[in-house]
Amino acid sequence: MKIQRLAIIGVGLIGGSLAQALRKADAVVEVIGCGRGKSNLEKAVELGVIDRYTHDVAEAVDGADMVFVAVPLGAMKSTFQAMQGHLMADAIITDGGSAKASVVQAATEAFGQLPSNFVPGHPIAGTEHSGVEAAFPTLYQNRRIILTPLSSTAPEALATVDAMWRLCGADVTHMEVEHHDEVLAATSHLPHMLAFSLVDTLAQMKENDEIFRYAAGGFSDFTRIASSSPVMWRDICLANRDALGEMLERFASELTDLSTILREGDGDHLLEIFERAKAARDRFAN
Amino acid sequence: MKIQRLAIIGVGLIGGSLAQALRKADAVVEVIGCGRGKSNLEKAVELGVIDRYTHDVAEAVDGADMVFVAVPLGAMKSTFQAMQGHLMADAIITDGGSAKASVVQAATEAFGQLPSNFVPGHPIAGTEHSGVEAAFPTLYQNRRIILTPLSSTAPEALATVDAMWRLCGADVTHMEVEHHDEVLAATSHLPHMLAFSLVDTLAQMKENDEIFRYAAGGFSDFTRIASSSPVMWRDICLANRDALGEMLERFASELTDLSTILREGDGDHLLEIFERAKAARDRFAN
Repeated sequence: MKIQRLAIIGVGLIGGSLAQALRKADAVVEVIGCGRGKSNLEKAVELGVIDRYTHDVAEAVDGADMVFVAVPLGAMKSTFQAMQGHLMADAIITDGGSAKASVVQAATEAFGQLPSNFVPGHPIAGTEHSGVEAAFPTLYQNRRIILTPLSSTAPEALATVDAMWRLCGADVTHMEVEHHDEVLAATSHLPHMLAFSLVDTLAQMKENDEIFRYAAGGFSDFTRIASSSPVMWRDICLANRDALGEMLERFASELTDLSTILREGDGDHLLEIFERAKAARDRFAN
Repeated sequence: MKIQRLAIIGVGLIGGSLAQALRKADAVVEVIGCGRGKSNLEKAVELGVIDRYTHDVAEAVDGADMVFVAVPLGAMKSTFQAMQGHLMADAIITDGGSAKASVVQAATEAFGQLPSNFVPGHPIAGTEHSGVEAAFPTLYQNRRIILTPLSSTAPEALATVDAMWRLCGADVTHMEVEHHDEVLAATSHLPHMLAFSLVDTLAQMKENDEIFRYAAGGFSDFTRIASSSPVMWRDICLANRDALGEMLERFASELTDLSTILREGDGDHLLEIFERAKAARDRFAN
């Protein structure tokens, strides 16, 4: 498999790392970057991540056989609208959005109906850093990529996107859109909400400078994800608000129960929860 | 400063690392270990962490000029009771308990009144691993140690414990007992509760194996502390239940508000929270 012209719409950590990984695998001839920030795009050319750039989506997808959309979820619809009518007939479109139902809806609204060559996807990879300077070619090595094809998706398009990610060293799975959104609400969106919310709660306490001064190693790891991009996470939370809202309510009620258990001094019950958690965490962390 | 005989009651990560750090600083002549598990104590001798051991607290403190108590919070009172009447007149006692009001109460109950040579302390250090094999001499390097002297504490005893920790490379602060417990509830005990509780909540969802399979890097860091010792954390949570219960309720109510904000699709409000959190986290993480 060789992509002749790859258009990366949104050249940051996710899009940039895909371009680098495909170059490393010698699986792409030319990479066109598209975005709004001139200095970021120039940096991307300088780093060899892309060959050239444009600020215009229509121009970026012109002649591209593979289009990867890695813009914030809130910009998906306008991005799809901007490429409408400018795509090659057999161009494959895929994306890296963290909430799939919202991307599918954006594409449906933008294109009128879902193009059969559109393969929604989500690389479960990333760091708390963003921008093309944070990109690196091995980001997807041994990481999971979830593709959420729809009944309208052409099997060949799905196979091509699947193969593209495997060339990046990724482990590819296919899943229903709704299921993806539930799983990610639990493992990614809720933890981010908790980390942001905890740090904000502490930051608003009156002795907050002192509080952070005594935060130990565990706290630093626990809150690392609160250093992630606020705009990106606002978009993700809003985009997946149904599944995430449900997880959040479930968890808030767990905490209320936990507080009752604590007030009652029920050590056996606490121990049971902590032991179950440790066993589960040790199991998946191995 | 040179300790002639150091008794470490509870030879795990915390007690073992203190012994190793003091040996490295050439600040101790002899180290006696005390605990229940024979194999752990034999391992401690083998690793050179302690010189010899006993299972009997009274025997361990006999002739010791410095006694460091690093047993679980639930065992503090019986440990103090066991050393009562066997301490040298000028022996200094300090501890590593993570909740100070409960240790002070245990000491008061065990000794009848607080010994003037008792200096409650808490090293803000540790990893999710436990046991003497996890100990290492640089654990306290540049880490904060909080001492919470009482009005009954002799200034010389406080100065000696302060100097001992500085020899381990630590940064020592003094604080009121209640204030310590509030700060630690916020930065350590609540995060542990959240991590244990989140992992347990996910572990109880029906597709839990799959859920953990799609957990990315951020999740692994976020939940690392859920691999900590369940028994130790049960004790800490119970010991600090007043301050922790208050933090837990405050946070559960934050989450309920967050869920309303999310349901209403109030992106500006979400962004405000996330931006404040990122700014605070980036500030203290530097």
